[in-house]
Amino acid sequence: MTLTAPAPTAVAVNPARGLVCRNCGATFGLIAEHACAECFGPLEVDYDPDLMRAVTREQIEAGPQNIWRYAPLLPTGQDPAQRVSLDPGMTPLVRAQRLGDELGFTAPLWVKDDSANPTHSFKDRVVSLAATAAKGFGYTKIACASTGNLANSVAAHAARNGLPSYVFVPSDLEPGKIVQSAVYGQALIAVDGSYDEVNRLTSELAETDEFEDAAFVNQNVRPYYAEGSKTVGYEIAEQLGWRIPAQVVIPMASGSLLTKVDKAWKELVAAGIVADTPWKVFGAQSAGCDPIATAFDNGWDVVKPVKPTGIAKSLNIGNPADGPYALDAIRRTGGSVGRVGDEEIVAGIRDLARTTGVFAETAGGVTTAVLRQLVEKGLLDPAQETVVLNTGEGLKTLDPLAPVVGPTHRVEPSLRSLRQAGLIA
Amino acid sequence: MTLTAPAPTAVAVNPARGLVCRNCGATFGLIAEHACAECFGPLEVDYDPDLMRAVTREQIEAGPQNIWRYAPLLPTGQDPAQRVSLDPGMTPLVRAQRLGDELGFTAPLWVKDDSANPTHSFKDRVVSLAATAAKGFGYTKIACASTGNLANSVAAHAARNGLPSYVFVPSDLEPGKIVQSAVYGQALIAVDGSYDEVNRLTSELAETDEFEDAAFVNQNVRPYYAEGSKTVGYEIAEQLGWRIPAQVVIPMASGSLLTKVDKAWKELVAAGIVADTPWKVFGAQSAGCDPIATAFDNGWDVVKPVKPTGIAKSLNIGNPADGPYALDAIRRTGGSVGRVGDEEIVAGIRDLARTTGVFAETAGGVTTAVLRQLVEKGLLDPAQETVVLNTGEGLKTLDPLAPVVGPTHRVEPSLRSLRQAGLIA
Repeated sequence: MTLTAPAPTAVAVNPARGLVCRNCGATFGLIAEHACAECFGPLEVDYDPDLMRAVTREQIEAGPQNIWRYAPLLPTGQDPAQRVSLDPGMTPLVRAQRLGDELGFTAPLWVKDDSANPTHSFKDRVVSLAATAAKGFGYTKIACASTGNLANSVAAHAARNGLPSYVFVPSDLEPGKIVQSAVYGQALIAVDGSYDEVNRLTSELAETDEFEDAAFVNQNVRPYYAEGSKTVGYEIAEQLGWRIPAQVVIPMASGSLLTKVDKAWKELVAAGIVADTPWKVFGAQSAGCDPIATAFDNGWDVVKPVKPTGIAKSLNIGNPADGPYALDAIRRTGGSVGRVGDEEIVAGIRDLARTTGVFAETAGGVTTAVLRQLVEKGLLDPAQETVVLNTGEGLKTLDPLAPVVGPTHRVEPSLRSLRQAGLIA
Repeated sequence: MTLTAPAPTAVAVNPARGLVCRNCGATFGLIAEHACAECFGPLEVDYDPDLMRAVTREQIEAGPQNIWRYAPLLPTGQDPAQRVSLDPGMTPLVRAQRLGDELGFTAPLWVKDDSANPTHSFKDRVVSLAATAAKGFGYTKIACASTGNLANSVAAHAARNGLPSYVFVPSDLEPGKIVQSAVYGQALIAVDGSYDEVNRLTSELAETDEFEDAAFVNQNVRPYYAEGSKTVGYEIAEQLGWRIPAQVVIPMASGSLLTKVDKAWKELVAAGIVADTPWKVFGAQSAGCDPIATAFDNGWDVVKPVKPTGIAKSLNIGNPADGPYALDAIRRTGGSVGRVGDEEIVAGIRDLARTTGVFAETAGGVTTAVLRQLVEKGLLDPAQETVVLNTGEGLKTLDPLAPVVGPTHRVEPSLRSLRQAGLIA
């Protein structure tokens, strides 16, 4: 009799073993809750450290060219057949040589360009995790309140995967934004009220009988949703040849993305996938919504809510749930926080486009402008390798640019007119 | 004394050996001309068949995740350091399960989604080839006349690579379109005239002393530019596991893209990279600009120019240079041509978005609507594997959708209002 090894399973092991409260440390199973039953603190995925440490570069590199190559490090989606996804991720890491030259960088500067995702923002990463977890829990619909990127992504995920969605938006949203979500043919509910009122309404709705089978992607399945952001960190490290950059600049809305990139790198170090080199995490906010920046400047551990204003709408979360954790990561790594006003944001969009060909939405303008500010203040070292994140697409937010960019020349259709315009002698 | 093999060179061999006239067969060196000096026929790249046949799957698979993995099959760009590129390509091949189900497909249906390119259209492929060839010829600027995708791509290539560009547009272009090209900070010349007048002006300009160092991407370096479209065909075959699909539906403007996908597959077969299975090529036009469709219907070998109208502006070329060659490929393979009106185009955009989550520009609506038409007429077999091309991004052409998509419900911020709207009982 010959003993043979069992055939390897196609499905990776799920390394998640439960949820844990970030506040009181209480542990739970892998449930669809985002708040601790003991203390109402935020729940986070808890992984089996042995399973996480067993993951190898080779295992990841053998995976698909999207976020699911990191399935052995994620809390859902191990079985390809059970994914509810647009297969986002593996977006370009663009060498920003000309921007670096302008800012005096002697070390490489990179832009991680998440506008290359299927609906052109980093939200596809988190929605793929949330929708896949939702299906696993037996939910039969997905839902969200959003005014932009999240709405686009949820509706598109629903469209491709045949899992119906309900997207709630304020009814005074710009017509273009309405089209961007409505085109997917999913339920789009315009609510005559402010974004806060829309949010309150979805919270009430989640408690009704009709919506008990709905996963609100950033509410009841938030712990899984949030883990999608780790893939940005994994990809940066892999695309650098399995190295962690010395510095990273990340835009902050809830602060979640920043904490997850930092977490991803800690996991890669723990697994021995990358060397344990030091890194500094820098946060970027707009001056119109800067509660985390204010807390950082004042040395506070808590974040005081603000009423958001300004053009960087995708970052306008006045009461950022992950603010304290973002502050922890920034302080622990020796990073800093910058804030920039609307004019600087527009200048940031233009600087990035002009030097890299990457056309960012306003959030990318915030990050680029904050990068410049941090260098000028001596807080970020241009002699150290640096990555800045662009989280979304400029085509979605054309309005702030219309007054400031335009044709460089206007001519008649004749060479004489080109001569008068100075284009030819 | 020990003999050792020479170290392999990092730079692939350029398989192009010259240009050849598609009309009279006259041959030329690798020069910057697009028209035959003998007969004014169109020039095309001529490859060394032995070098093309020597290319292997393994060689390609070892390359980067962009068009340059096919450098051994392209006429420029073998040396990574000499590329002028945004590194486009390897865009997703999306399984369109739900669309296929609706149309009665029993074989797989796929969407090749080129909206995932850096500036969100397939033009990045051809501009990367043109700009790289231009640099090789010693040109110090790139230029084009365009109203949309080509303008975006040329300006973005110039921005990232520091090779200045001059983009000429009609001055009555919509403000949003102006922003999409102006943001890159390159020369953008608004011409008070029709698109035809803009084109005539750039032809005159190309003859001036000041612009003799300018490569007009789809004029003097057109033979190299056009070869960029082959990469769509290579990618489809590779993403299917090195197979050619039985049927492909391709939108037609000049007709070049269609001929190059067909050419790419012939090359892969000749190189033994894929099996020699039969394929049918189908062309898609809008009813507002259907000269190739009309020639096909009437059995003509020549294409009679039309004056374009209709919403599919990126396809509005009334005198398609590659029309006859597109007809050849369609007839040789046993394919067909479909044409659809503006209402069907909008329905096509919505069908594609609703079933796949891919938000296409009007050209993708043309392709999707033509797919439906071809199936309904029995011209395309839903029992055969089929790929449809989406060549651009819906965010660039929101206007045609605004009148027909919108919120599905409008409510007050209360559960009572949701009840009245029928969302809950």
